Amino acid sequence: MGPVTIDIKTSAHEEFVDITEQVQDAIAQIGAVDGVCTIFSPHTTAGLTVNEHADPAVAHDIISFLHDAVPAHRPWTHAEGNSPAHVKASLLGSSVAVIVERGRLHLGTWQGIFFCEFDGPRSRRVWLTFTPSP
Amino acid sequence: MGPVTIDIKTSAHEEFVDITEQVQDAIAQIGAVDGVCTIFSPHTTAGLTVNEHADPAVAHDIISFLHDAVPAHRPWTHAEGNSPAHVKASLLGSSVAVIVERGRLHLGTWQGIFFCEFDGPRSRRVWLTFTPSP
Amino acid sequence: MGPVTIDIKTSAHEEFVDITEQVQDAIAQIGAVDGVCTIFSPHTTAGLTVNEHADPAVAHDIISFLHDAVPAHRPWTHAEGNSPAHVKASLLGSSVAVIVERGRLHLGTWQGIFFCEFDGPRSRRVWLTFTPSP
Repeated sequence: MGPVTIDIKTSAHEEFVDITEQVQDAIAQIGAVDGVCTIFSPHTTAGLTVNEHADPAVAHDIISFLHDAVPAHRPWTHAEGNSPAHVKASLLGSSVAVIVERGRLHLGTWQGIFFCEFDGPRSRRVWLTFTPSP
Repeated sequence: MGPVTIDIKTSAHEEFVDITEQVQDAIAQIGAVDGVCTIFSPHTTAGLTVNEHADPAVAHDIISFLHDAVPAHRPWTHAEGNSPAHVKASLLGSSVAVIVERGRLHLGTWQGIFFCEFDGPRSRRVWLTFTPSP
Repeated sequence: MGPVTIDIKTSAHEEFVDITEQVQDAIAQIGAVDGVCTIFSPHTTAGLTVNEHADPAVAHDIISFLHDAVPAHRPWTHAEGNSPAHVKASLLGSSVAVIVERGRLHLGTWQGIFFCEFDGPRSRRVWLTFTPSP
């Protein structure tokens, strides 16, 4: 079984998009039962993270912290001007793994899965696949 | 097979708890042979990492660095006052993957698996599951 | 099936080594079809990341940013003097997961897999294993 693609449209230069529901829908579509869902970003200026999605202020604070911690102005050598986005992509990582139990994403009470745009707005996508436990 | 839960009691506001042995015990309990163990934190103010557990000074230095790098006082918008813990959780990540070979965690000589508390002390837990190689 | 080892020789104190081809070769050797490749660093002063490998300036900028963000001189307590390398290993992480489709690493156009040396030069290695999708 090949990976499933989820299309994402970001609307700001830096933005976290909650994709928890789309991932859950894909898991159901695959017919996954017990195992691990791997979600992967094929982009080098965006990442993925699992964090609180109950209060949008949490995502805002993470974006704001990273914006200041990885400054636009440094002696960057990559000519495209988006080096901060590449750095942030590596700090958060290109994939997340979430346990699946009886066909449902097994997340904590406050957790959601975020696509982390650092060089938008753009049309983006993530890929996901499922690997079963015995 | 559903995930296994490991209960953790943290005793400080910021603390790394070495859970390597509990993970190894869970792997044995599952009857895992060859594959990947995925360990997941269902909390949004704690993370997981693999690093040196021979010298406790390493964990101390990582905690201390993050404490200064993600300051308590910033124009945080999340009202609970624990935004630094959310940021650190995303920087380290909500899961780690460790290869299992012949029923044993396949770790480097100095490596251990740490639960990374950033907003304790609290009762915490991690979930883990095993996905086999062919 | 046990993990495959890829040997790496780093040539600088801080260096990203593109291991995409060696990982692809290992995937072919294993006979992997559809699933997830987990690549793991058994070292505590090196990490792994997926980022742009078309322009080497991107890796250069990530290394340079981390070099300044995690300074050599701080009240580090770990006596070996390589605490910054331990911190960077945890910030990037000890493993990456890449989806495999029909025996090929399913990466974005500009993505490559990097071994991230932070305390070299040294002889290093990574382990990888494959877990299949249904």
